[in-house]
Amino acid sequence: MKAERISVNWLEKMAFQGEVNGHKVVIDADETVGGENKGMRPKPLMQLSLAGCTAMDVISILQKMKVEVDDFKVHVDGELTEEHPKHYTSMHIVYEFKGKNLSEEKIKKAVELSQDRYCGVSFSYKKVMNITNEIIIHNV
Amino acid sequence: MKAERISVNWLEKMAFQGEVNGHKVVIDADETVGGENKGMRPKPLMQLSLAGCTAMDVISILQKMKVEVDDFKVHVDGELTEEHPKHYTSMHIVYEFKGKNLSEEKIKKAVELSQDRYCGVSFSYKKVMNITNEIIIHNV
Repeated sequence: MKAERISVNWLEKMAFQGEVNGHKVVIDADETVGGENKGMRPKPLMQLSLAGCTAMDVISILQKMKVEVDDFKVHVDGELTEEHPKHYTSMHIVYEFKGKNLSEEKIKKAVELSQDRYCGVSFSYKKVMNITNEIIIHNV
Repeated sequence: MKAERISVNWLEKMAFQGEVNGHKVVIDADETVGGENKGMRPKPLMQLSLAGCTAMDVISILQKMKVEVDDFKVHVDGELTEEHPKHYTSMHIVYEFKGKNLSEEKIKKAVELSQDRYCGVSFSYKKVMNITNEIIIHNV
């Protein structure tokens, strides 16, 4: 299946205008490497892709399970090599939920389904780095 | 080396507010899977990460080589599996340059250096999919 083409167009120095599915975002380097921090770094977009992919799976599965959450965040931490080409050796996903009488069992199941069956980003990353996760539930 | 934490915060339905290096971007699914297309899909962010990473390498190397380009774009096409977990089997990078008397040799060298030595995103992806590239030069 063909994926939609994405593009980045050079603006100036290290800044680029990225375009994905008709939506725009600025990418830039930080000042230490000649950029002006006008936008996101490219590498952490790998973390963002993973977070978004698994977050959508989980919220969609929870909706099917009739689990109502008040708040839901996904954080992704990572470890990078020091030497070139600088690449991730691991990513750690933190799933954070807030709600009333949330079922830990159902939430665990939703996360497992995403990690083991649905999230294609996680599937690819797992082959080249260590992917771990934890679940935090705030019952209010 | 620790990578900076990135986060996505649930907005509604399938929409999330992503935050990377203090910069914000909305991620959303399309209407066919319960989203409202308010932002980028998560998976193409893998393509965007690759495009941004190699584009910054190349423009930075060309600046060191004293090669001046008027315009520079990087496009990334991809192939995805049909079955779950849907993941990329290949990505194709198109480097597109516009300028006066651009040196094909220097441009090729810059792309090679990024692909073989500097781009950590490409380095990781190459282990799990086929990464190819082409160079288009518009001499004006």
